[in-house]
Amino acid sequence: MKLYSYFRSSAAYRVRIALNFKDVAYETVPIHLQKDGGRHKSAEYRAVNPQMRVPALELPGGEVLVQSLAIINYLEETFPEPALLPPDARSRAHVRAIADIVACDIHPLDNLAPLNYLRDPLKQDQAAVRGWYHHWILEGFAAIEALIKPGPYAFGPAVTLADVCLVPQVANAKRFKVPLDAFPKIIAAEEACQELPAFDKARPENQPDAE
Amino acid sequence: MKLYSYFRSSAAYRVRIALNFKDVAYETVPIHLQKDGGRHKSAEYRAVNPQMRVPALELPGGEVLVQSLAIINYLEETFPEPALLPPDARSRAHVRAIADIVACDIHPLDNLAPLNYLRDPLKQDQAAVRGWYHHWILEGFAAIEALIKPGPYAFGPAVTLADVCLVPQVANAKRFKVPLDAFPKIIAAEEACQELPAFDKARPENQPDAE
Repeated sequence: MKLYSYFRSSAAYRVRIALNFKDVAYETVPIHLQKDGGRHKSAEYRAVNPQMRVPALELPGGEVLVQSLAIINYLEETFPEPALLPPDARSRAHVRAIADIVACDIHPLDNLAPLNYLRDPLKQDQAAVRGWYHHWILEGFAAIEALIKPGPYAFGPAVTLADVCLVPQVANAKRFKVPLDAFPKIIAAEEACQELPAFDKARPENQPDAE
Repeated sequence: MKLYSYFRSSAAYRVRIALNFKDVAYETVPIHLQKDGGRHKSAEYRAVNPQMRVPALELPGGEVLVQSLAIINYLEETFPEPALLPPDARSRAHVRAIADIVACDIHPLDNLAPLNYLRDPLKQDQAAVRGWYHHWILEGFAAIEALIKPGPYAFGPAVTLADVCLVPQVANAKRFKVPLDAFPKIIAAEEACQELPAFDKARPENQPDAE
């Protein structure tokens, strides 16, 4: 498989964790989101993913899957062990809820495209953009902190999709110096995950395109 | 089951479609997002959903599920027929990708909270907020238009999760007068869905709390 990735993309980071966790071999195809005005906007990459975003996963036959959570669900269905979702439907719903607070209510607002939109055309200065960035993490993390289970991981004794989404979001929060003192459960889950090779290998700084 | 809903919430609209499609009986508990400064922020509702958003689904035993896609996945697993996801993993991934472009890349940016944030503290006027609103729909719909299958529905001859997410997003687009001429496939899928009772019954104007 080929993973079209950018070392700093937290959506690509999720997929890297899931691939590593399930021990699925893949080759990284780096797509730099800032060089040349954004290589994801090239005609070549547009042919891979019409949405012009990373990640995209190319299967051995050439078929391309897009959207990080759709890709991870595909991996879960195709390589069921080790599982990223618990066996019972209610627990799965709780795990997916935590994952979706990250994937729907935090990350899309703090993604590159809306931050650029705030800067231009909306002419917001760096302090305003930073305030926006912090706001959605603080609000989303407050909800997650209330939903998280006793650890070590976000949903208890096993790693789940909740951790796969949470760890890259915590990395972004730290990078942008969001104060995380109010979220001891999130931090404890993140620290437990970072001890696992699947998570460590997926870190931005461990990617072939890291700067 | 009890669905905490707001007639205009497009995330709640998705869950209403899924419940109707699977013929699951439910009672609507209206949570008005604008009256009294937002009834979703009341202590009473916070005890139901710590994230203070709709929808939330209360199961017969009292357990509460949150996040629209987590709820719909729960319904799909618990009431598998009629299915909202195709049987094979690759097709499921394509359906989920369309759903996630709506749920992650369009809707969160045009949700009530970010629009309020643009107005205050960012002091953006109505034209700027409207431009923002249109922008994310136009960009996301362009990607979906390229991914959509020959109809009548978004992923072919059967209704899927893609339609469940797309129809409420089209409703929002129309309400805010987003030009949709460039998306004939999306519009055709939406029109086909609207002929089905499950979709019709879920429309904002057909809710008990409609204004």
